[in-house]
Amino acid sequence: MSTICAISTAPGVGGIAVIRVSGPESFSICDKLFHAQKKNKALSTQAGYTMLYGTFRHNGEHIDDVVIAVFRAPHSFTGEDTVEISCHGSLYIQQRILRALIESGCQLAKAGEFTQRAFMNGKMDLSQAEAVADLIAATSAGQHRLALNQMRGGFSRKLRELRDQLLHITSLMELELDFSDHEELEFADRTELKNLTRKIEHTISHLIHSFSTGNAIKNGIPVAIIGETNAGKSTLLNVLLNEDKAIVSDIHGTTRDIIEDTVNINGQLFRFIDTAGIRETHDTIEALGIERSFRALDQAQIVLWVIDNTQATQQIATLSSLILPRCKEKQLIIVFNKADLRTSEPPVIPNLSENARIISISAKERIGLEQLQETLTESVNLPEGNQADIIISNTRHYEALMHALDSIHRVETGLSSNLSGDFISQDLRECIYHLSDIVGEVTTDEVLGNIFKHFCIGK
Amino acid sequence: MSTICAISTAPGVGGIAVIRVSGPESFSICDKLFHAQKKNKALSTQAGYTMLYGTFRHNGEHIDDVVIAVFRAPHSFTGEDTVEISCHGSLYIQQRILRALIESGCQLAKAGEFTQRAFMNGKMDLSQAEAVADLIAATSAGQHRLALNQMRGGFSRKLRELRDQLLHITSLMELELDFSDHEELEFADRTELKNLTRKIEHTISHLIHSFSTGNAIKNGIPVAIIGETNAGKSTLLNVLLNEDKAIVSDIHGTTRDIIEDTVNINGQLFRFIDTAGIRETHDTIEALGIERSFRALDQAQIVLWVIDNTQATQQIATLSSLILPRCKEKQLIIVFNKADLRTSEPPVIPNLSENARIISISAKERIGLEQLQETLTESVNLPEGNQADIIISNTRHYEALMHALDSIHRVETGLSSNLSGDFISQDLRECIYHLSDIVGEVTTDEVLGNIFKHFCIGK
Repeated sequence: MSTICAISTAPGVGGIAVIRVSGPESFSICDKLFHAQKKNKALSTQAGYTMLYGTFRHNGEHIDDVVIAVFRAPHSFTGEDTVEISCHGSLYIQQRILRALIESGCQLAKAGEFTQRAFMNGKMDLSQAEAVADLIAATSAGQHRLALNQMRGGFSRKLRELRDQLLHITSLMELELDFSDHEELEFADRTELKNLTRKIEHTISHLIHSFSTGNAIKNGIPVAIIGETNAGKSTLLNVLLNEDKAIVSDIHGTTRDIIEDTVNINGQLFRFIDTAGIRETHDTIEALGIERSFRALDQAQIVLWVIDNTQATQQIATLSSLILPRCKEKQLIIVFNKADLRTSEPPVIPNLSENARIISISAKERIGLEQLQETLTESVNLPEGNQADIIISNTRHYEALMHALDSIHRVETGLSSNLSGDFISQDLRECIYHLSDIVGEVTTDEVLGNIFKHFCIGK
Repeated sequence: MSTICAISTAPGVGGIAVIRVSGPESFSICDKLFHAQKKNKALSTQAGYTMLYGTFRHNGEHIDDVVIAVFRAPHSFTGEDTVEISCHGSLYIQQRILRALIESGCQLAKAGEFTQRAFMNGKMDLSQAEAVADLIAATSAGQHRLALNQMRGGFSRKLRELRDQLLHITSLMELELDFSDHEELEFADRTELKNLTRKIEHTISHLIHSFSTGNAIKNGIPVAIIGETNAGKSTLLNVLLNEDKAIVSDIHGTTRDIIEDTVNINGQLFRFIDTAGIRETHDTIEALGIERSFRALDQAQIVLWVIDNTQATQQIATLSSLILPRCKEKQLIIVFNKADLRTSEPPVIPNLSENARIISISAKERIGLEQLQETLTESVNLPEGNQADIIISNTRHYEALMHALDSIHRVETGLSSNLSGDFISQDLRECIYHLSDIVGEVTTDEVLGNIFKHFCIGK
């Protein structure tokens, strides 16, 4: 195993930078370069979780005065002997120390290699390792809580429980097979097996179900902005994002593609999806866009129906029948835009469900925006969730759980139709396999490579 | 004294971030927020230069798993009790920990406040504190060496020597004054005093002299690019800087202002100064520009005389008499540009001094650039300098030394003209005052404020 090094703090100039070295030669390499202020202090004889102050030198050049932190295997992040060099944060010093380490026998760490080693050395499983990258990328409280819980192993414990239960059933089934000559023998009580299987199915379904929440927290709660052409949907998107993302013009039908981006409002990430305006059209491309608008609406958790205040009566008449039936399970916010252009009260919308909210704004004049943001925050309908709840947010985990659910369904069918134990046992093993894939026990090198290449270097 | 906190690593997302806390309440504040993995481990009872692993919590929220480093006063950078929190480097975590600290009684550190406290607590003098900022800003090996030497106190020790010698002379002078009734008494041997004073004068002059070197290292070696209009000076500047800094056109006299920027070539910082082309002109503004070209030439250490290869004979005839006499003390590099447009050898330039170098390039086609860069590197005429040499690079120090030199000159004059001891003593005290200003012993709060406000926050 090589000894690797990388700058672990954010790129650029800072007061302090930290360079991390991990691997079997960490101490011997750094002992050649580091000279403790107090004589006879070698890193290799230093206790873990202690620090030394001294000078860092290479080829006769005094590079910096540094503090070196010593972590001894297995009590380090990677599980290997590790040294963290805390130096002054100039670009020159950071690069110079890195060069000294490499010329003394270290290899430059690849993206995520420290975390990958932590995984390889059994310090964490794969789903925990994946959470490290999510944790570092988190910008909202929700994303942060998701990643931290996963990193601390809540999900892993739940999976271990599931696998233990599945293994228990499997061993009962296989014991039965060993004595299959004695046809009357049935070690595993099939009713008990059915109950156990149903419990497992329920847990897996529950985890799968949590993905829509996890995905909304991680990638933003999907909010579709929908309405007739020229109602001001793109202007509203730009104002919400605080940038000119969508092209805005007075020409009806300017937006054809689905344009989306995320923004953090009151600590919650929203993903706004601007859609093509809905109207009768003979333009084929525009018609496709309108079809997509309805798809976006169907996938959204929150729908902003933007109505041009100056043509409210007509727009409500045209779209009520199209939009309202699709919003029964959703949070609907009806936004009367261009409030500055009309003084009378907006008309009443018939057949409106109770949870629909109505608000008047002027996107162009930035009137009523704060109220809209508050209404959005109130409309978020995520499960309360405490730190102990397990919510999955990783597509790879979602897919593995879907496969596991398939297998467990086959087990249930098999038990109901009194299939022979060896068939059922095979489906049980498949279910265990998919759960093991999540924690990295059966994962291929290619998948591992794909996971860690998205990490930053130095972590 | 308050307890301060700040993010000390570079701004942005990284694998690790470090948040520094310093002041009397460092341990008690962090003990409220940090929970060591091993029970009963409180920071306040922890030995200096050790670390603890645990969770960082605030208001019931588990923010992160962190490593906390403990430094006990006076054995820390600031000289105060200090805690360094090493957390995952997401923006959310960094901001959240900072908020937790502030809500628990810390104050957000001002720019340079940690270093200012180190200065206030006698961990370093003012010139060393100033070097910390230079060290962090250093991008070349030369700048780095200058700053590191100054931070490690080489300059401070030299100043202390000088002040000790001056105090010795002063005390002799003042002893003489106490016995001034006895006119015949002269405790201080005036010849010895003159010798001592001459030595001090010599040392101060030497330090002042080093400023041109220090300044060249810190701000780049000044290289004037000079020549006739349309010789390709601006094209050359852009190519050397690798960006479009100067406006380039075929119109003679495009460049009127002095345009300059620095670039690191082979580890040495150069400051290139593009000048207005020299020609007969009736344009007043352009004429002013040409005057400035000559001023830039006079201040440069290296002169690049750019000659249009297609008009070489004429340009040499016109400018030799203007340029060559001004380059006697300088490194002159004669650059025949547009080498691609003429195949014949460039003409011989008469009266050329031996140290002038000649080179053919095409700035536009990027031919011969590497050779030009090497020639530039060879032309650098900085004193060899080893790590022990003291080179000053700070304008504030330069000015204080100039004042000190004035005072010591007055002392010399006073001694030569047998002035009474009390006059001389006053000049001696003034000299000591200016030297003390450099290390911050007599420096006003306003000057201190000015110095530290240019630091980054977190250092």
